[in-house]
Amino acid sequence: MELFEAMQGRRSCRDYLPEPVGEELIEKVLEAATWAPSPLNTQPWEFFVITSKEIKGRIFDEAERCRVWALETSGWKWLDSYKVDFLRQAPVIIAIVGDPKKTGVDMFMEEGNIGYQAACAAAIQNMHLAAHSFGLSSLWFTLFNKSAIRVILGVDEAKTPVALVCLGKRASDIREVPRKSVKDKTTYLR
Amino acid sequence: MELFEAMQGRRSCRDYLPEPVGEELIEKVLEAATWAPSPLNTQPWEFFVITSKEIKGRIFDEAERCRVWALETSGWKWLDSYKVDFLRQAPVIIAIVGDPKKTGVDMFMEEGNIGYQAACAAAIQNMHLAAHSFGLSSLWFTLFNKSAIRVILGVDEAKTPVALVCLGKRASDIREVPRKSVKDKTTYLR
Repeated sequence: MELFEAMQGRRSCRDYLPEPVGEELIEKVLEAATWAPSPLNTQPWEFFVITSKEIKGRIFDEAERCRVWALETSGWKWLDSYKVDFLRQAPVIIAIVGDPKKTGVDMFMEEGNIGYQAACAAAIQNMHLAAHSFGLSSLWFTLFNKSAIRVILGVDEAKTPVALVCLGKRASDIREVPRKSVKDKTTYLR
Repeated sequence: MELFEAMQGRRSCRDYLPEPVGEELIEKVLEAATWAPSPLNTQPWEFFVITSKEIKGRIFDEAERCRVWALETSGWKWLDSYKVDFLRQAPVIIAIVGDPKKTGVDMFMEEGNIGYQAACAAAIQNMHLAAHSFGLSSLWFTLFNKSAIRVILGVDEAKTPVALVCLGKRASDIREVPRKSVKDKTTYLR
C-alpha cells in the first residue's frame, strides 16, 4: 500500500470480527515495529502476542476496573458508557513492553527515561500502518495499570507495558475523524 | 512510495546538503504528522518550522551545551566526539511542541501526562516516513533542555518541546543499522 494511503486510511477500531489473524501476518506487523528509530539504536521494545481467551479476559477485567476508576476520578461522563469489550472481541492483542534502561541521554535528565517510550510509540505507529496495509484494523489502548498488566503477562518488574494494540478485522463502518489543518498548527521562523 | 519501502529505507541522518526544502514539501511532511492517532483525538501537536540561520545557531549552541553537560554527567565517551553540526547544516528544523493538557485518562494517573507525548512520537514517525518518501532525510533529536528551546522558539511555558526533527537532503552515504529479529523480541501467549 502507498504510504500516504496507509497514513490517511488508518482509523482506530473498537469493534472486531472474531476471524483470527494468521501468525505470519502478525510477524509482519511486528517486523514493521522493529523498523522504527530508537535512541542509540537500543531497540527498547518487546512484544507479547495474546490470543489466549483467558488472558484477554483478564486484560478486559483490568481495563474495566480502570475505566470505573477513571470515571470516578475524572468525572468524564463519556467513560460511563465507554465499553472495553473490544479487548475480549479482538482476535489478537499485542502488548508493547519497553525497557527503560534502553534509552538515550534522557536517562540523566530531570524528567527521566522517556526516549524509550517515544521509540515504542514510533514502533506502534508503524504497526498501525502495517496492519492497515494488510486490511486489518487496530487500536492503541492504554487504559490499564502497568503493574496489573505486568502480572497478567508475566513481564519483568523493570520493564514498562507501554500500550496494548488490538488487531483484527473491523466489524463496523469507519467513522471519519476530523483533523485540524496544518496551517492552524504551524509557526514559521524564517 | 510503498509503505514497507518507506519504513525500511528511512535512516537517521546527521549530515545534510545546504539545498533548501520547499515549503510545499514541508507542509506535506506536516500533514503526514497530523494523520497520527491521539488520545481522544486531541491532536496535541504544534509545529515550529525553523529555517532562520540565527535561530538554528541558537539551537546548535543549546545542543552543544547539553552535549558537554551530558558527557560530564554520563561519562559516555562517544559524546566527546559527537558533533551536533547538523543543527546548523540542515536546511530545516521542525520543532514538535506538545500540549500536556491535550491528553487522555493518563492525566489522572500517577506517572502523569504521557499520552500526548506518545501521540507526538507517532506524528514524528509519520514525518520521517513522509520525508523519506519525498527523497529527504531526517533526524529525531532530543538533546536539549526544554526550557531553553521554549525561550529560543517563543513557546508557551505550559507546552512541551517534544523533539526537533532535522530535514534535508543527505550529504553522506547511508549507514546500515542492524535490527534484532522479531523472534528474539516476541512472546506468544496462546
